[in-house]
Amino acid sequence: MIKNLTVIGGDLRIVNLLDLLSKDGYSIKIFGLEKIQDISNKRNILFANNLQEATSFSDVIISSIPLSKDKKHITAPYSDKKIEINEILKDIKNKFFISGNIDETIYEIAREKNIKVIDILKREELAILNAISTAEGAIKIAIEETKKTLHGSNILITGFGRIGKILAKMLDGIGANIYCEARKESDLAWIKAYGYKQIHINHLNDNLNKFDIIMNTIPNIIFDEERLKKIKKDCLIIDLASVPGGIDKKSAIENEIKTIWALALPGKVAPITSAEYIKETIYNIFNEIKL
Amino acid sequence: MIKNLTVIGGDLRIVNLLDLLSKDGYSIKIFGLEKIQDISNKRNILFANNLQEATSFSDVIISSIPLSKDKKHITAPYSDKKIEINEILKDIKNKFFISGNIDETIYEIAREKNIKVIDILKREELAILNAISTAEGAIKIAIEETKKTLHGSNILITGFGRIGKILAKMLDGIGANIYCEARKESDLAWIKAYGYKQIHINHLNDNLNKFDIIMNTIPNIIFDEERLKKIKKDCLIIDLASVPGGIDKKSAIENEIKTIWALALPGKVAPITSAEYIKETIYNIFNEIKL
Amino acid sequence: MIKNLTVIGGDLRIVNLLDLLSKDGYSIKIFGLEKIQDISNKRNILFANNLQEATSFSDVIISSIPLSKDKKHITAPYSDKKIEINEILKDIKNKFFISGNIDETIYEIAREKNIKVIDILKREELAILNAISTAEGAIKIAIEETKKTLHGSNILITGFGRIGKILAKMLDGIGANIYCEARKESDLAWIKAYGYKQIHINHLNDNLNKFDIIMNTIPNIIFDEERLKKIKKDCLIIDLASVPGGIDKKSAIENEIKTIWALALPGKVAPITSAEYIKETIYNIFNEIKL
Amino acid sequence: MIKNLTVIGGDLRIVNLLDLLSKDGYSIKIFGLEKIQDISNKRNILFANNLQEATSFSDVIISSIPLSKDKKHITAPYSDKKIEINEILKDIKNKFFISGNIDETIYEIAREKNIKVIDILKREELAILNAISTAEGAIKIAIEETKKTLHGSNILITGFGRIGKILAKMLDGIGANIYCEARKESDLAWIKAYGYKQIHINHLNDNLNKFDIIMNTIPNIIFDEERLKKIKKDCLIIDLASVPGGIDKKSAIENEIKTIWALALPGKVAPITSAEYIKETIYNIFNEIKL
Repeated sequence: MIKNLTVIGGDLRIVNLLDLLSKDGYSIKIFGLEKIQDISNKRNILFANNLQEATSFSDVIISSIPLSKDKKHITAPYSDKKIEINEILKDIKNKFFISGNIDETIYEIAREKNIKVIDILKREELAILNAISTAEGAIKIAIEETKKTLHGSNILITGFGRIGKILAKMLDGIGANIYCEARKESDLAWIKAYGYKQIHINHLNDNLNKFDIIMNTIPNIIFDEERLKKIKKDCLIIDLASVPGGIDKKSAIENEIKTIWALALPGKVAPITSAEYIKETIYNIFNEIKL
Repeated sequence: MIKNLTVIGGDLRIVNLLDLLSKDGYSIKIFGLEKIQDISNKRNILFANNLQEATSFSDVIISSIPLSKDKKHITAPYSDKKIEINEILKDIKNKFFISGNIDETIYEIAREKNIKVIDILKREELAILNAISTAEGAIKIAIEETKKTLHGSNILITGFGRIGKILAKMLDGIGANIYCEARKESDLAWIKAYGYKQIHINHLNDNLNKFDIIMNTIPNIIFDEERLKKIKKDCLIIDLASVPGGIDKKSAIENEIKTIWALALPGKVAPITSAEYIKETIYNIFNEIKL
Repeated sequence: MIKNLTVIGGDLRIVNLLDLLSKDGYSIKIFGLEKIQDISNKRNILFANNLQEATSFSDVIISSIPLSKDKKHITAPYSDKKIEINEILKDIKNKFFISGNIDETIYEIAREKNIKVIDILKREELAILNAISTAEGAIKIAIEETKKTLHGSNILITGFGRIGKILAKMLDGIGANIYCEARKESDLAWIKAYGYKQIHINHLNDNLNKFDIIMNTIPNIIFDEERLKKIKKDCLIIDLASVPGGIDKKSAIENEIKTIWALALPGKVAPITSAEYIKETIYNIFNEIKL
Repeated sequence: MIKNLTVIGGDLRIVNLLDLLSKDGYSIKIFGLEKIQDISNKRNILFANNLQEATSFSDVIISSIPLSKDKKHITAPYSDKKIEINEILKDIKNKFFISGNIDETIYEIAREKNIKVIDILKREELAILNAISTAEGAIKIAIEETKKTLHGSNILITGFGRIGKILAKMLDGIGANIYCEARKESDLAWIKAYGYKQIHINHLNDNLNKFDIIMNTIPNIIFDEERLKKIKKDCLIIDLASVPGGIDKKSAIENEIKTIWALALPGKVAPITSAEYIKETIYNIFNEIKL
């Protein structure tokens, strides 16, 4: 069982993660996190004086999630340093490197040096758990931005994937009338089995005028001008899909449909729970790679 | 069937109510609402030039909910006038007067003049429906003010009345672990029947350290210093009970327990739905008094 | 804390109750139960040789639930003896007598002798808990006696009391479309709050032709010939109401509507759970009378 | 749009299906169903005098589901004839042949004759919908065969596929404590997201002694002698998995664990709904092949 970990960079979730890992008994050397003085006095978290001291401390290097914004430096809001990805990789031959949204070029470099790269954001279980936080964030926005109760409202959820399924369950529990859109017959069967109203994508246009709220999870422009024109003027659209999103935002403005594009909700809505989910996923990884 | 209605004073919910009553075909004379110009152009809502013109228009006078803040003048935020309750009552012999939180003295005056006074806030069905909005408001606050998901959190609800029951159902739907406190054995049996965990008030103290969120609905200081000391430091308390509330606020501050006293949520969270509930209740009243 | 109990007569639930009480550490003298040989070898259950030996053993006499079928002898299917109620009461001055469906005449006799009579079937918490078993029994019948799934079926529940509420919750969980009938506005508000479809009794007739299953909980002939004629021929009616029930059975047969009158379900469906509920209620009683 | 259909053989579900297709306006020629006299008087269902008359009537031949028990003759309980599969295929060049559990050899013959063979039991949406009926059947058995209420019982569901997911939802709605076993981390994440208790297969043994009911959906001997020995003696096992099932039946008998192997529940529990699901799936097929 591994006992030492290295953590380099990362945002509030990484800070929360440090707290959780420390409680579980790991000794941790951190770098690129020097602004979090209050955690540094915990006995099993230590600041490394330099990158090399950090990377040499453990066989497992955990870095920021997502890894980088510019494909060159890691995300490190708790540091004034600019830390290059390449610099980290240079030192960690034969080790495990855990981060998120890792670029393909990193994998190539890693392969040469026998570094095992693990992109935690590609882990199915983390994506499912993050959908819980996303759903709660969407519910908060829906209560906040409408003048009606969710209870009794007609809510359309487009896309019946992870977020769609969890949103539907929660909103059903609150007492909304749930309509789920899907394209595949098997998804429609699931929608029926779970007791929601099914809408095949081909029949979406005929139903659009009855919704009080629309929550989109499909990263494709589902709501183009034609569809937006069919929506009630007081309908709220919450777009939960990553770029390019599912709504033609320009047309939504022109048609005076209130649209909120809510991204990266897990970290905002529930940073502690998000850190717990990351921790559980890391433990699953440790388990699989027998660390 | 009554066709004409008089509405005097009232806040945003009354404005929304006017809209709904108008859509249902009623002709309405309004007074003490002159700032809502945008509704005045609806064909079946007319401004009365004076109080007497308003009250003479219908056998049913609907006034602000609640009626008054000072026991003398009606609540009328959409007017610059100061309208005395007595002035209204003077004119409406043999009529129905619908408002909320009506003082006992009003009933006495009314009796003499054969005015039938109906306090809509005493109607059980409205109280139940308002609990829906209150519960959603509490959920929004809970998502907003905590760093964890409600899903998986241990939530204590004190009091298993209207708000307690609906909160429990909704939070259960979101996936929280629901603990409900009650004193009566029959309430505890209902808590068990609905699948929540029961906590008899006598055993409350032994359980307090496990909650992430506490939602109180009992208007009595349940959470005194002794109990507050047993609560986790990162527990959030949402107090939904009317004055004096259920939490010793001073002691909560001393013990650094974050407490939010959330009152009058229905009007804030869901003004349109609140107006719909008022409308439905008025129709129930009409039905019962054969108007 | 009381440690000794006397149990006289009773059916399978009393036998299961003996088992539970014995596990909780009570010493029990039993009479009128001599056919349950297999329990007699438990170390803390003893057969009394005669009634007087039984009644003198404890301050609390628990007897059959319900007490009697003929108002004279207790129900005692596990005995060949005929035990008169009066004979029991004769011996138990100043004691507690717990049974069910106790006739008014018993209370009079008891008063004279300072016997405290407690009718457990009048306890609200037991009635609520028994409704859980009743609801499960009704669900079993509904699955068994129809050719459709409950999921997706239109089910009408008449009466929104204890059984109605729990049935609605369970059937909703299975995925049926739930319609609840009620007369009081506050009940209708609860039906809406819980997310079921409301049907005011006055509008019942207009809706009757859409139901696949009707479950009645009202002990009054709600379904007379007029209403039965409006029901679909393949609709199943399950009558859960005590005598006289809610269905004109003669007319149901004439109209070829399949009707099942299901009474006393808790003892049949879940004898062990029923005994547990009785035990919990007895403990609540002990708690209240400080035994 | 296709208007004529041919139906050859089949059991009660096919008879119910005929009824539904006929109501939807299809003209149907049937063969191998001569014992269902009561349907024959419907104006748009006609008996074919021979197989050739039947197959020539439509481009779509629907046959029994499953197709055959002996790989040679179709299942035809409503006929005295023995109808060979090959005889049917001989006549239907260039047509569509819809049935279930179709043997690989049939596909080979079909390919030569340009017959498009569609195995409806391989359709994902039908499998999902059938899981609804299976779950209700399992619930009926569980209520029937236990002495406790499902409400409050500890129920283990092994396998979190179609049946597992729907069973969990329904039993949760009834108020049971749901434990779901899975092997994959993503399944465990879903179990958590849906609010059930997760049990990783590796930890199954440590938990077995707490269950009142076990429902297995995995067609592999999960419950071998070692595991059966850890189960409570009064635990009921319902095995919903197809051959070989998930329970070592011999060992279950030796260990006196009551085990019910419940197969083919949809047709038994809900023959009408099953026929509706088949109909919907056939319509989906028509839609996809543009008939």
